[in-house]
Amino acid sequence: MNKEYSKLWLDYRPLDPRFTGRAAIRCPSRVDRQGAAVKELITALSAMLPAAELTFGADSAALIFECDIGDFLAEEEYMISADERGASVIGGSEKGLLYGVFDYLRMIRAAGSFVKMNKRCAPALPLRMLDHWDNADGTIERGYSGDSFFFENGRLIVDERTEHYARLLASAGINAAAVNNVNVRGDAVRLITEEYYPELAKLSAVFSRWGIALYISVDFSAPISVGGLRTADPLDVNTAYWWQQKARELFSAVPTLGGFLVKADSEGQQGPYAYGRDHADGANMLARAVKPYGGRIIWRAFVYNCAQDWRDERTDRACAGFKTFAPLDGHFDTNVILQVKNGPMDFQVREPVHPLFGEMKHTSVAAEFQLAQEYTGQQLHICCLLPMIRETLFFDTCSQPEHSRVLDRISGAAAVSNTGDSFCWTGSELAGANLYGFGRMCFEPQLTAEDILDEWITLSFGNDEQVRETLLYILLSSHKAYEDYTAPLGMGWLCKPNTHYGPDPLGYEFDRWGTYHRADRDAVGIDRCKTGYTSLYPSPLRELYSDIDTCPDELLLFFCRVPYTHILHSGKTVIQHIYDSHFDGYEQAVEFARLWEELEGRLDRRVYENGRKRLKEQLRSAREWRDIINAFFHRLSGIEDEKGRELY
Amino acid sequence: MNKEYSKLWLDYRPLDPRFTGRAAIRCPSRVDRQGAAVKELITALSAMLPAAELTFGADSAALIFECDIGDFLAEEEYMISADERGASVIGGSEKGLLYGVFDYLRMIRAAGSFVKMNKRCAPALPLRMLDHWDNADGTIERGYSGDSFFFENGRLIVDERTEHYARLLASAGINAAAVNNVNVRGDAVRLITEEYYPELAKLSAVFSRWGIALYISVDFSAPISVGGLRTADPLDVNTAYWWQQKARELFSAVPTLGGFLVKADSEGQQGPYAYGRDHADGANMLARAVKPYGGRIIWRAFVYNCAQDWRDERTDRACAGFKTFAPLDGHFDTNVILQVKNGPMDFQVREPVHPLFGEMKHTSVAAEFQLAQEYTGQQLHICCLLPMIRETLFFDTCSQPEHSRVLDRISGAAAVSNTGDSFCWTGSELAGANLYGFGRMCFEPQLTAEDILDEWITLSFGNDEQVRETLLYILLSSHKAYEDYTAPLGMGWLCKPNTHYGPDPLGYEFDRWGTYHRADRDAVGIDRCKTGYTSLYPSPLRELYSDIDTCPDELLLFFCRVPYTHILHSGKTVIQHIYDSHFDGYEQAVEFARLWEELEGRLDRRVYENGRKRLKEQLRSAREWRDIINAFFHRLSGIEDEKGRELY
Repeated sequence: MNKEYSKLWLDYRPLDPRFTGRAAIRCPSRVDRQGAAVKELITALSAMLPAAELTFGADSAALIFECDIGDFLAEEEYMISADERGASVIGGSEKGLLYGVFDYLRMIRAAGSFVKMNKRCAPALPLRMLDHWDNADGTIERGYSGDSFFFENGRLIVDERTEHYARLLASAGINAAAVNNVNVRGDAVRLITEEYYPELAKLSAVFSRWGIALYISVDFSAPISVGGLRTADPLDVNTAYWWQQKARELFSAVPTLGGFLVKADSEGQQGPYAYGRDHADGANMLARAVKPYGGRIIWRAFVYNCAQDWRDERTDRACAGFKTFAPLDGHFDTNVILQVKNGPMDFQVREPVHPLFGEMKHTSVAAEFQLAQEYTGQQLHICCLLPMIRETLFFDTCSQPEHSRVLDRISGAAAVSNTGDSFCWTGSELAGANLYGFGRMCFEPQLTAEDILDEWITLSFGNDEQVRETLLYILLSSHKAYEDYTAPLGMGWLCKPNTHYGPDPLGYEFDRWGTYHRADRDAVGIDRCKTGYTSLYPSPLRELYSDIDTCPDELLLFFCRVPYTHILHSGKTVIQHIYDSHFDGYEQAVEFARLWEELEGRLDRRVYENGRKRLKEQLRSAREWRDIINAFFHRLSGIEDEKGRELY
Repeated sequence: MNKEYSKLWLDYRPLDPRFTGRAAIRCPSRVDRQGAAVKELITALSAMLPAAELTFGADSAALIFECDIGDFLAEEEYMISADERGASVIGGSEKGLLYGVFDYLRMIRAAGSFVKMNKRCAPALPLRMLDHWDNADGTIERGYSGDSFFFENGRLIVDERTEHYARLLASAGINAAAVNNVNVRGDAVRLITEEYYPELAKLSAVFSRWGIALYISVDFSAPISVGGLRTADPLDVNTAYWWQQKARELFSAVPTLGGFLVKADSEGQQGPYAYGRDHADGANMLARAVKPYGGRIIWRAFVYNCAQDWRDERTDRACAGFKTFAPLDGHFDTNVILQVKNGPMDFQVREPVHPLFGEMKHTSVAAEFQLAQEYTGQQLHICCLLPMIRETLFFDTCSQPEHSRVLDRISGAAAVSNTGDSFCWTGSELAGANLYGFGRMCFEPQLTAEDILDEWITLSFGNDEQVRETLLYILLSSHKAYEDYTAPLGMGWLCKPNTHYGPDPLGYEFDRWGTYHRADRDAVGIDRCKTGYTSLYPSPLRELYSDIDTCPDELLLFFCRVPYTHILHSGKTVIQHIYDSHFDGYEQAVEFARLWEELEGRLDRRVYENGRKRLKEQLRSAREWRDIINAFFHRLSGIEDEKGRELY
């Protein structure tokens, strides 16, 4: 495990090195002076005012920073009043105060001085979670940032890096994290046994100090694999009793534990189906076990038939999650949160918004995103997901009440983490924007991607205007560029099987995963009226997506089967759009690389070189994507590029 | 390592249990009574005549078996005169005698009695070799029969199984074996260091007893990796000296060593190109090091650019071996044998015969086949390679002297072994026919595949007529069936990358291996006149292959680019042939499975069940091949099946 790490956006630099007066922190006794909020303020002020005399409660100080807790605020809410002589930050609790302090520090760092401001803020989403797919052996499933910094050879590690990580998450507004892979294998199965309690308690304490609830991914069949029972049937009294005892034991050893994350009946993981039970039976049984301790069950809705016959055109994987969970709406206990992926497939660069968000009315739902760039370039390609995440959150589900957006219907959001033990935590420095931005967006979704990136760039790379403008441009253009050269018009799954990196236009076409485009010489795309998928949306979405003339271009091939000569809203034919977008996307990658090179000397050497190497690979790979996808459709359609470019 | 093994075709069963008289073995003192030949005769007679009294040199015996060595015979030659009262077997040496004894035993076992026969026989090919791709860690590259029985965790193992294996090889006529992978990695790099000498000497002694020369695959850069030199440049005096010392050391510790097998400048293995030298420089330097000890260098001709740009239509991998080695003809030392794969690509189910066989006139050449069914069903599909091997050996190269066949031009044949530590040695019992038959065919190529299979079936499974007929039918039809449902008209590389199992029609189309079909909506195949490949053959082959009207159907898409509507010699269109052959091939697999089930009770239970399971997988996989390849070409061509079958 690599122990060297960057401080990322929490590297406080001097704000006013010439200030030599007194700076005082004032707080009543109801505020914990040893708590994270006050300590963070001290850490920051010490670094930002290196020549100042920092004291507690001195009235004659030139700069005064008040911290307080106010009952009139919600637990995670805070209020800031600040001017050039200091600030008052009040939180609804120590946690709210911590968020207030971070926000205040963020703003003065961005401004470069002690500015006047007034703000009252509470997070939009109560649950703001990261899901780590770290394995107990230290590897990370779909990890592109090195190995785990939580696990090594079956041991759970809690050290300085863990603490810094918790600080980073808190500063971005994250308040929960599941530290092990939802595919619970190897030693991770035994994470809920006493051999791990001491380290879990230590980790949970560190997390808790920073307002983060620790979650553990558990194996649904743990009563068998861990408990030695003969069944894990959720309606069996012995199973339920086993989990109750297990929860009692666990929460007594790890009192600040948040609960469990469960992937059941999915891609080989055991679940209630093995016993003829449904997912509410499974989730509720666990929910009741953890309820006495305030625990929660995060239950994944990613359930589908992963042994499908590609010849079968009636079964549509896109329908599977909806069909499994919609009938169970209202059957889940209140401490169950259903974790629904942003789209109905699996984190493709472009998918429609999952129809379950509009459907579930009596169930707590969390939206799940994937910061780990499994299908979006694996941190070798730049792909800022914030615009996509925001678009999803603000998507009008067209359900009752009218105009209710995804954001209005969910009680949380979770994201598969993109972190690892690489020096910059996320493999590529620019991928850090996804980590930071995800938390910020869940907290203050009214901020645009640009707002958030602007603040992240300044906090991370300082105030150089060219750096700011360049990175902003690259990051904001990156998702479209990646989409352009990989996945035209809502087609997904053109990538290589297993690795999910690089193009393979038939890689998923004849396999068992329910992921097909059925491209032939005349037409491409899936008619999802026929499969019944469009009918899972309420009107007018249902009609919008069903009609080839109204379906948005960027989702056309997801929803409709069309000839290559079909004219898009853009005025282009489908085939010409495929060619153009691939050439354009590649040119964008060339432009990113060119712009990056202009930052030489303006960025830290390590950051610059890491970015340069990755952009080189992005270019190589983008060229493969461009030429292979274009060649595939050129050979199929026989239609030449209008602009006469080489298609192979 | 699995230590249980079948005796395969060397399981001597009683021939005449009622014979209670004396059976005598008579041999002059120049014959070694402790040698393999005499001992094999004793072993066999003891088992075949369980009630007989077996003695040495008793004149009054009812059955008399004479063994002798005759100077008038070549070393590996033998002569048999036999009748119902016994036999006289004379060999040109102990080795020739051994082959004679095996042949005699084979014939009386096949006949079921002591028959009259007269035969004089010498092997057609001086070198009859197996190449094992066993790694020092115990795995086998492209191994489909379990793990290695030569290596385990870096150690070389010599035990009873090794001895039985040497016996099996000798009985099939094999006289050389390289025991480690040509990709020399891990501990295998150090196989030529003293830590391995004791075990190598032991192994070589066992091999030698059965007339088998032990070869070791060596890393061309061993002077660096093992010797600590700074270069492995073959023209560098230090390199040459290092190899000379190494050879002296090795042959002194392992005096019966045959020599080295080398894969150089190929797929990541180091070679003379790294130093600007050619392959004659590399091979000769090694040849001179081993020459004083009678050693030989087997040098692989499998050299090509494995980092090709798929966009490049001029570079043709098929030309690479020829272009590398043809200019070097006459430059190789006499103890170098160039090992040339049967076809110019890589062991596809159908390839043209390698043009180097006709070209090399002043170089010892060995033909290389692959018994390990890497591209031919991995021992899960039945694929008897003997007809293909014979076709290759008897192929008229059209070179001078006129009508010289491959067989006439080579001094040996090598085959990648299909063995491992599975109970039946080859994963599937029926794959044993390839192992046995390869040796037999190199020894007596005038035997047809049917002749050899007939003897192998009887020796392995006894005299049940239904078993004999069924297995003969299945084995003789199996290669065509596999070709039919996988590789129409000479197209290769439609398999999944890396694993090489199962269909993936674009799996190799956009990769770096130089393996393309360039199928588009109108046409398919590579015009190999344009790439210059056809011109590597002498007339009239050159013209035959260049002309779409004369090119044999089964190689058409290898040599020519044709529209799907092109009419074959068979009268079918290309597209209809693709459809038909896939349906037919699958039906053949169905038939194999049906026929096998009729053998229940007639075969050993273990053999029957193993075969049944594998045929089930063959059926599943053949259906995937049929439907995916047909769907691929149906979607491309838009042409329906004449017979209206579903194409997807």
